[in-house]
Amino acid sequence: MLGLAGAGALGAAAGGAVAMEVFDGALPAQANDPGAAVPFYGGHQAGIITPAQDRLHFVAFDVITDKKAELVELLQKWTAAAARMTQGRDAGAIGAVNGVPEAAPDDTGEALGLPPSGLTLTIGFGPTLFRTAEGKDRFGIADKRPAALADLPKFAKDALQPEISGGDICVQACAHDPQIAVHAVRNLARIGFGVVSVRWSQLGFGRTSSTSVTQQTARNLFGFKDGTANLKAEEPKLLDEQLWVAGGDGPDWMTGGSYMVTRKIRMLIETWDRTSLAEQEAIIGRNKGEGAALGSAKEFDEPNFDATGSDGAPAIARDAHVRLAHQQFNNGARLLRRGYNFVDGSDGLGRLNAGLFFIAYQRDPRKQFVAIQTRLSRQDALNEYIRHVSSGLFACPPGVSGADDYWGRALFV
Amino acid sequence: MLGLAGAGALGAAAGGAVAMEVFDGALPAQANDPGAAVPFYGGHQAGIITPAQDRLHFVAFDVITDKKAELVELLQKWTAAAARMTQGRDAGAIGAVNGVPEAAPDDTGEALGLPPSGLTLTIGFGPTLFRTAEGKDRFGIADKRPAALADLPKFAKDALQPEISGGDICVQACAHDPQIAVHAVRNLARIGFGVVSVRWSQLGFGRTSSTSVTQQTARNLFGFKDGTANLKAEEPKLLDEQLWVAGGDGPDWMTGGSYMVTRKIRMLIETWDRTSLAEQEAIIGRNKGEGAALGSAKEFDEPNFDATGSDGAPAIARDAHVRLAHQQFNNGARLLRRGYNFVDGSDGLGRLNAGLFFIAYQRDPRKQFVAIQTRLSRQDALNEYIRHVSSGLFACPPGVSGADDYWGRALFV
Ligand code: HEM
Ligand code: HEM
Repeated sequence: MLGLAGAGALGAAAGGAVAMEVFDGALPAQANDPGAAVPFYGGHQAGIITPAQDRLHFVAFDVITDKKAELVELLQKWTAAAARMTQGRDAGAIGAVNGVPEAAPDDTGEALGLPPSGLTLTIGFGPTLFRTAEGKDRFGIADKRPAALADLPKFAKDALQPEISGGDICVQACAHDPQIAVHAVRNLARIGFGVVSVRWSQLGFGRTSSTSVTQQTARNLFGFKDGTANLKAEEPKLLDEQLWVAGGDGPDWMTGGSYMVTRKIRMLIETWDRTSLAEQEAIIGRNKGEGAALGSAKEFDEPNFDATGSDGAPAIARDAHVRLAHQQFNNGARLLRRGYNFVDGSDGLGRLNAGLFFIAYQRDPRKQFVAIQTRLSRQDALNEYIRHVSSGLFACPPGVSGADDYWGRALFV
Repeated sequence: MLGLAGAGALGAAAGGAVAMEVFDGALPAQANDPGAAVPFYGGHQAGIITPAQDRLHFVAFDVITDKKAELVELLQKWTAAAARMTQGRDAGAIGAVNGVPEAAPDDTGEALGLPPSGLTLTIGFGPTLFRTAEGKDRFGIADKRPAALADLPKFAKDALQPEISGGDICVQACAHDPQIAVHAVRNLARIGFGVVSVRWSQLGFGRTSSTSVTQQTARNLFGFKDGTANLKAEEPKLLDEQLWVAGGDGPDWMTGGSYMVTRKIRMLIETWDRTSLAEQEAIIGRNKGEGAALGSAKEFDEPNFDATGSDGAPAIARDAHVRLAHQQFNNGARLLRRGYNFVDGSDGLGRLNAGLFFIAYQRDPRKQFVAIQTRLSRQDALNEYIRHVSSGLFACPPGVSGADDYWGRALFV
């Protein structure tokens, strides 16, 4: 029934992927024990439909070598370290072997004694890895760039800062303990010394989205429940249609992968805080306490966009965020949102520098994020209270199948 | 036995304070349930000897009014909001009373449904509240400025950024859930609109210090256990001697209070990560795995500064951090450290902007922090790997005794 162009046909193609070893995210372990490990190997990368962990450290790297062999070697080392760290082991020894402490440690030590804490490490490749802004095919992979990894257009009101946007490779580290997420990113950076350089990095202190029906909906810094109408891990059919790249969608190396869009969205919380509750609810299109769509009673009731209030006006305003973002007005397009709240100190003008680090996964950004954000950027009542200051687009390959596989192997062989 | 000048006499004077209602920090509740509330009212402010919570949001405000009455009114409102929020209640209603949603909400909503999570809010008054840099006695309290609140001297190698240093009033918000700490600071800022303005703010994602024997020692971003030789909540005699301001120490309004020093210390972690384990351990003076002083076996063994290795050199080097910081070489001075790890993205030079947000409480900064840091800033082997980029000094008044009292009342009446 969804109007996502080609969803029917692609849904059928995606059916083939069901035969793959599908990563199913260790839901039960996570739900019961925030210290537990999430499996690293699988058909899909962990950290996408894994129930959103509480904390984030996101990093974007520039590749500073021109040698493909060095890059591939790094991806192999990174994969091995990620397989270790996600299972609660160190990236390497904290001292050199045999107690001869003359070498720099292979692990930085700050996670010693801590449990795995649900750590997931999810890698993505940016457009500039395939071809530089100057058009150079750096690693002989330009012809493998998926059409779906088309540079995002400039949206209305974009206020992007290039120095905290883009990147050749990203890693999303999520965990229930921020020390674990920071430790993982820091050790990947350490291992990558001389091959990659940190371009930008972002801490998220609290998850906004839930990605599983086992999770309670969390709140963003506007005080609203966020993630109610999200894609959830328990809807495999929808995920095949909307989230996972299917065979035939583009180059084979992305089959079973997904595309990630990141947007750092500054919230003008001081302005928001002086807005009345009624106004806030009208802007979002849901009420604040329960999180129900206006005109509905319960959080998970389907919004009724045709309902009108006593004054004859639509219960959910024409410029309300949830109306404009809803699949009904976006050709059936949906997203798996996986964002985090952030506070980066203050802005020098007496205000907290706070907002939402928006992360969304999807099968094709052109039909999903770009379509929705084009509409939102023009009409969303929320725009008065937010500024998009950073943007990222990454192709996240399928999962690593085992110890002899590595992140992105199919792209480089 | 301690050489802290006057410690004996002051210790006796401090004995009087024992009769005060001593805040004892809800140790058992905290240890068993990170969601539990910490009592707000008491002889001392909570958040000092309270077992260090996992997360921090620290904020420094500039007072932008000249009217004492407005400042006092704000302190009253803040105290009431703090009493509510620390007990897991909202700062106010999320909608206007009687369901008439025309007013801006009195609570911003992002903590709805979350437990108190050990939230403590600790207030401090900076030197500039008493007299501006231009020498103006803004609120008629200049003669109540304690001598112990003397501006910190400039230390060797200081690289302080004024825009993230100082402040008229600070609030340290600690909690086990960062959303709770952020919510508290944000609502205090909202309530303070027009009277104060956020000067700077800092998130700390992980505690470094333990302040209670019930806590395991955590690790800083150099991978070392931090807080081993800290003052602990269970040593009331030492706390009277080293931590709490006694009657006779200075103006009465500070009796039962404590002085807080903050230092944002950038760690050059990429450089550190390329240093050998032996070198790292020599710099700190403790080993990395166990946290034992060099030459000792166990974390809590007293360091032996006279021990020598097989080469005849001191086991704990002359420029090792723990030697230089130890009371034995600082006239008996100790500190209650309560710092947090931070990562503020990256620095534009390919490195993580990470470090330690150092917080220390003490009875007299002139004899304690200043004495120790003078030595450290000149000789500490650690200096090659760190930069002090922000500094704060605050007088934290005693606790609020009940609903008719407020933060700093004795200073303003
Ligand atoms: C700071 C910026 C944003 C805030 C505060 C925000 C907040 C919210 C809230 C409160 C909801 C309702 C609860 C829910 O279903 O999750 C929602 C829904 C949604 N948002 Fe956002 N959002 C922001 C940015 C974006 C962006 C940039 C996009 C994509 C371009 C987006 C896409 C969606 C979608 C698809 C829904 C579900 C709509 C539905 O199907 O009902 N949001 N958002
Ligand atoms: C990034 C900077 C710093 C790092 C990485 C650091 C690290 C450490 C470590 C690993 C220890 C040993 C374990 C322990 O007893 O806690 C320690 C002890 C200590 N540090 Fe620091 N520290 C730093 C800055 C400071 C500063 C600025 C001061 C005060 C001016 C200070 C005062 C102390 C004291 C008093 C001790 C206990 C020494 C003893 O009695 O054994 N530290 N520090």
